[in-house]
Amino acid sequence: MSSERLIYLPLGGAGEIGMNCYVYGYGAPNAERLIVVDLGVTFPDMDTTPGVDLIFADISWLEARRDRIEAIFITHAHEDHVGAIGHLWGRLRAPVHARAFTAHHARRKMEEQGQDPAKVETASAWPETVQAGPFTVGFLPVSHSIPESSALVIDTPAGRVIHTGDFKIDMAPGVGEPFDRDLWASVAQSGVKALVCDSTNVFSPHEGRSESTLGPEITRFVAEQTGMVVATTFASNVARVKTLAEAGQAAGRSVCLLGRAMRRMIEASVETGVLSDFPSTVTPEEARDIPRESLMLLVTGSQGERRAASAQLARGKYLGLSMDEGDTFLFSSKTIPGNERGVIAIMNQFSEQGVDVQDDDDGRYHVSGHANRPDLEAMHQLVKPQIVVPMHGEHRHLREHVKLAESLGRTGVLAPNGTCVALGGNAPEVVEFVETGRTYLDGRVQIGALDGVVRDRIRMALNGHAMVTLVMDEDDSPLGDPWVDLKGLPERTADGAALSEVLEADLAQLLARAGDKTLTDDDKLDEALRRRTRQVCDTEIGRKPEVTVVVSRLS
Amino acid sequence: MSSERLIYLPLGGAGEIGMNCYVYGYGAPNAERLIVVDLGVTFPDMDTTPGVDLIFADISWLEARRDRIEAIFITHAHEDHVGAIGHLWGRLRAPVHARAFTAHHARRKMEEQGQDPAKVETASAWPETVQAGPFTVGFLPVSHSIPESSALVIDTPAGRVIHTGDFKIDMAPGVGEPFDRDLWASVAQSGVKALVCDSTNVFSPHEGRSESTLGPEITRFVAEQTGMVVATTFASNVARVKTLAEAGQAAGRSVCLLGRAMRRMIEASVETGVLSDFPSTVTPEEARDIPRESLMLLVTGSQGERRAASAQLARGKYLGLSMDEGDTFLFSSKTIPGNERGVIAIMNQFSEQGVDVQDDDDGRYHVSGHANRPDLEAMHQLVKPQIVVPMHGEHRHLREHVKLAESLGRTGVLAPNGTCVALGGNAPEVVEFVETGRTYLDGRVQIGALDGVVRDRIRMALNGHAMVTLVMDEDDSPLGDPWVDLKGLPERTADGAALSEVLEADLAQLLARAGDKTLTDDDKLDEALRRRTRQVCDTEIGRKPEVTVVVSRLS
Repeated sequence: MSSERLIYLPLGGAGEIGMNCYVYGYGAPNAERLIVVDLGVTFPDMDTTPGVDLIFADISWLEARRDRIEAIFITHAHEDHVGAIGHLWGRLRAPVHARAFTAHHARRKMEEQGQDPAKVETASAWPETVQAGPFTVGFLPVSHSIPESSALVIDTPAGRVIHTGDFKIDMAPGVGEPFDRDLWASVAQSGVKALVCDSTNVFSPHEGRSESTLGPEITRFVAEQTGMVVATTFASNVARVKTLAEAGQAAGRSVCLLGRAMRRMIEASVETGVLSDFPSTVTPEEARDIPRESLMLLVTGSQGERRAASAQLARGKYLGLSMDEGDTFLFSSKTIPGNERGVIAIMNQFSEQGVDVQDDDDGRYHVSGHANRPDLEAMHQLVKPQIVVPMHGEHRHLREHVKLAESLGRTGVLAPNGTCVALGGNAPEVVEFVETGRTYLDGRVQIGALDGVVRDRIRMALNGHAMVTLVMDEDDSPLGDPWVDLKGLPERTADGAALSEVLEADLAQLLARAGDKTLTDDDKLDEALRRRTRQVCDTEIGRKPEVTVVVSRLS
Repeated sequence: MSSERLIYLPLGGAGEIGMNCYVYGYGAPNAERLIVVDLGVTFPDMDTTPGVDLIFADISWLEARRDRIEAIFITHAHEDHVGAIGHLWGRLRAPVHARAFTAHHARRKMEEQGQDPAKVETASAWPETVQAGPFTVGFLPVSHSIPESSALVIDTPAGRVIHTGDFKIDMAPGVGEPFDRDLWASVAQSGVKALVCDSTNVFSPHEGRSESTLGPEITRFVAEQTGMVVATTFASNVARVKTLAEAGQAAGRSVCLLGRAMRRMIEASVETGVLSDFPSTVTPEEARDIPRESLMLLVTGSQGERRAASAQLARGKYLGLSMDEGDTFLFSSKTIPGNERGVIAIMNQFSEQGVDVQDDDDGRYHVSGHANRPDLEAMHQLVKPQIVVPMHGEHRHLREHVKLAESLGRTGVLAPNGTCVALGGNAPEVVEFVETGRTYLDGRVQIGALDGVVRDRIRMALNGHAMVTLVMDEDDSPLGDPWVDLKGLPERTADGAALSEVLEADLAQLLARAGDKTLTDDDKLDEALRRRTRQVCDTEIGRKPEVTVVVSRLS
């Protein structure tokens, strides 16, 4: 048996849908040469990460082995695959490879974070390959909901791995390459050690539908409307944006793109050659002078994001444009779990404006970009890998995908984030569990998920914050009474008294009775004041706040 | 035309699904005698109401007219209809009427808040009625997802109003009265002025299914399982709990109820006579000794609530019971929009335990308790009201329901919270807009939604909190340097320096350069320190925190 090994290690994306970051290694144990696949983000929420701007996989493990990293490969330009490249590249500093459209986005992200965009090299599609140490890597076109998505064909001395990236099996994706079954079969023909495979839609029982099935429905829908039509979808779904724009054009409407991401994606698509025949558009300024029945807006914000064009239109005017009674808003998108409240909020705001809202209506106006269960089966059968490693899914998706693989006679391995699996032998072997986690981009600072910063924010949000200030004189006696400031706490107690006054009186009493042991010891004094503040609040308002005590000693 | 009028005024529930509170009045304008229908709660969330315990409709309008309130009627025992009775009754103090099962819950809620449970009177079903000033009110049985739900037949000198409460049309609801079409037709026969009607499922296009359709599916599912089966549903859905228990019994399993709400509901159902033949159950202590393949647990927490039995089992042990590889967890429930994250979290925790999770699978294991669109049409056709007033829905539901009513030839009126509608004339007339809002139960204190308390909590959660403390001597000079405490902010700047030290040095400089005008004026000094703290943080960490400045002056 060879002393070298092929390892797979997910640092993000296996145990969640988001912040994809996968590592492959080949070489002597603990001296493997490494490649990284994808550096994505996930998005914060108020429940668990208030105030956080973006979330990345914790790449400490990689950073500590930076000298062993040969290259970084990006499969496609979705934020959960490329979004962290600018923020994390400085900690890894390896060359980045991606196909043209993806590279275009990666370069912009590098520039925005002050990194050198020339570190991103444009790769050609399979059968061309990139050499990266012991790895030979090819970009194998695959259909998804963004142009130029690619699986990676990763050849190693221990065999061939196919990393699907995000994919669906779509023979007519509208923009970008159709799924090429023959090409995939030819890649698989020589034998595939492992298929590392998208798991997102493993619970969706029906065969996925093609992007091209939406055109007629959307065209009919837009043609039927009499007022202004405003449609939203994921800006990166260039095929959909094109379908929507063509539906507008077919109905004799001028088309206007609203929202930076929407314009940027279309521009990038034209610039990189993936899109050649997009209908002509008008600017927002021009749109203002066009009768509403002759206008169609394509806007960002399908997930109800507060700052996106959709939400701004829901609240009122955006760039001088606004919706009105008789207009129609179309969600050509599905709501990602967790975003329901935001989406429902803008639906109701539109309702208040008298605007009719059409959602995806169980698939008439939206199809998923991921392979459903039968499509996953088809992929397994097509590639015939020895091992199936489910990725890109929550734990329940990975587990179900393993079951699916095994029901088809393959060896599946459940490998959530941090599970280092050796793929080279006859069966996969878990060789190590690596500590993984999340890094928060907080303003301009990267902080660890366990640093306590966000925990304190959540506590202040749930409990409120009481600040107790006290000045002690040179003889360690209180100079005046303690002072209490409250933030996020009711002003009045259940009995109607002023809470800060009740607290101040009670803390003054506590100090009057306190001995020198307490008064001379900052920690004891802090603890006594904090504990009493929490007790009094519990009695008076039924809540124990966070407490900060500041004692200033004159000396 | 009469100088007296019949008015309808929703204070909660029309513009949201939750915190139902509707007012009817009859009499001379602004001297109407009033009745209240339902006093419900809605539940807080981290996005908009962190730390809040419960949310009620703001009843200030009613409280100011307390002497005109004849009675309070509760349609059924769901929390969004009866949950606020104990908290708000003291501000209204009118007699409460409800049928036995509902009254049972209302009395407990009164007691829990220190109110007299005897204020709740048990009403009989239609054709018996309760006289309340100019109103004669009957409880008309209707099918829903909790026993003894009732519509209200409200007779007034200006005509008959039917307030549906929550309802579905179910001829075999399992527990409680089937929908009695003949009875409803007889009530409608003499003519109905207005149908005030549940709108929850107006967007659901297919006829609703009966609770009784679930029995065979659930029974088959439970019979197929080989490990322990744990099932959750809404505790108040007594019919479902019974169906689940019977499925367990049929499969030869001992049944154990876990979670206070679950046991309480079944006990109340037996006690009030709505449930007579519930399978025998075992206690959690007994359950521990029963082989897992012979056990079925029915647990609270279908919405992923953190403290419920389901979430506790997902995290590990609950009352000595735990799940294991090969066990099955069944959601006989749907996830209410907004609760997806919590539900998905426990699904993944079960997956990590090797537990198979079955969700409602598009309706095999759950049916809704509300009338779908065709059922709403059937209700309109059955009652044939002059006016349809949609209630119990978000704005978009109410608007769609008005459209539906008008498509059937009725007069619909869109009346979100605060819209006072006169129903007596030939057409409904909006006579006033009343200011409405929300009251938060925060610990033991009721606070207004606009009091700023929750706003401050959200700001601290999003921005962090910096506290600046400064002691000024008798001559209005700083005594030492200002002191900065940080909470919910990164310790280190983007450049790696200690943020509090950077701030303290900068603020000390500011003070050194400040003139007497600033140093002698608390407001100016506060403002200068706050603004500078925000500027420095913006520069150093890319974030402007909340700032509290405390200046202590020695005098």
